[in-house]
Amino acid sequence: MKTIDLAASLATFSEHYKPRTVGQFNDHDVMVVKVKGPFNWHKHDDTDDFFLVLKGELTIQLRDGDVKLGPGQMYIVPRGVEHCPVAEEEAHILLIEPRGTPNTGNAATAATRVVV
Amino acid sequence: MKTIDLAASLATFSEHYKPRTVGQFNDHDVMVVKVKGPFNWHKHDDTDDFFLVLKGELTIQLRDGDVKLGPGQMYIVPRGVEHCPVAEEEAHILLIEPRGTPNTGNAATAATRVVV
Repeated sequence: MKTIDLAASLATFSEHYKPRTVGQFNDHDVMVVKVKGPFNWHKHDDTDDFFLVLKGELTIQLRDGDVKLGPGQMYIVPRGVEHCPVAEEEAHILLIEPRGTPNTGNAATAATRVVV
Repeated sequence: MKTIDLAASLATFSEHYKPRTVGQFNDHDVMVVKVKGPFNWHKHDDTDDFFLVLKGELTIQLRDGDVKLGPGQMYIVPRGVEHCPVAEEEAHILLIEPRGTPNTGNAATAATRVVV
């Protein structure tokens, strides 16, 4: 196991909504992702969805209202709950999901798993 | 589910090595903890151990060497691996462990679970 420097990992790429797996924990992938603009509405029926904002501002739209997060703030979307992440400006996020979870909620449209 | 502000949660207590559960994710507790001084050597046979430094510096002693972490750096101690966290000055850490995991590796000496 190696030390994981989140900022250094984020500095290795620039694409949005393409998570990088930086560590593995109890069959979960620990990932960093850069986001900007709207993602898509989706849900995960089998897993909660862990978001921790490292830099910038993230809005997690929910059907019953928005959650606004800044650096050092986190939110766990319960399994089965529809949500849509949106960032006006680029934001950096720590994500944790069971290995193999499609980021869009749909394997056909999901980002490819990239381990760094 | 509520927004979790890690710094605000940390500001509610001052004890060392007494984690507070701030969120729950896939049967894991997401916890913040303040540490200072040495903890104890222990291992968890059934879970990896997730450490993310939020503030300060943490050394994770391993039998084959030390891992030194600063803010924004993380380390995942694999299950079964003996380790001893040490901090010369107070540090603030994000921990994730399956709900009910004894922080000392031993239920008899573990901190009581506190949900905030």
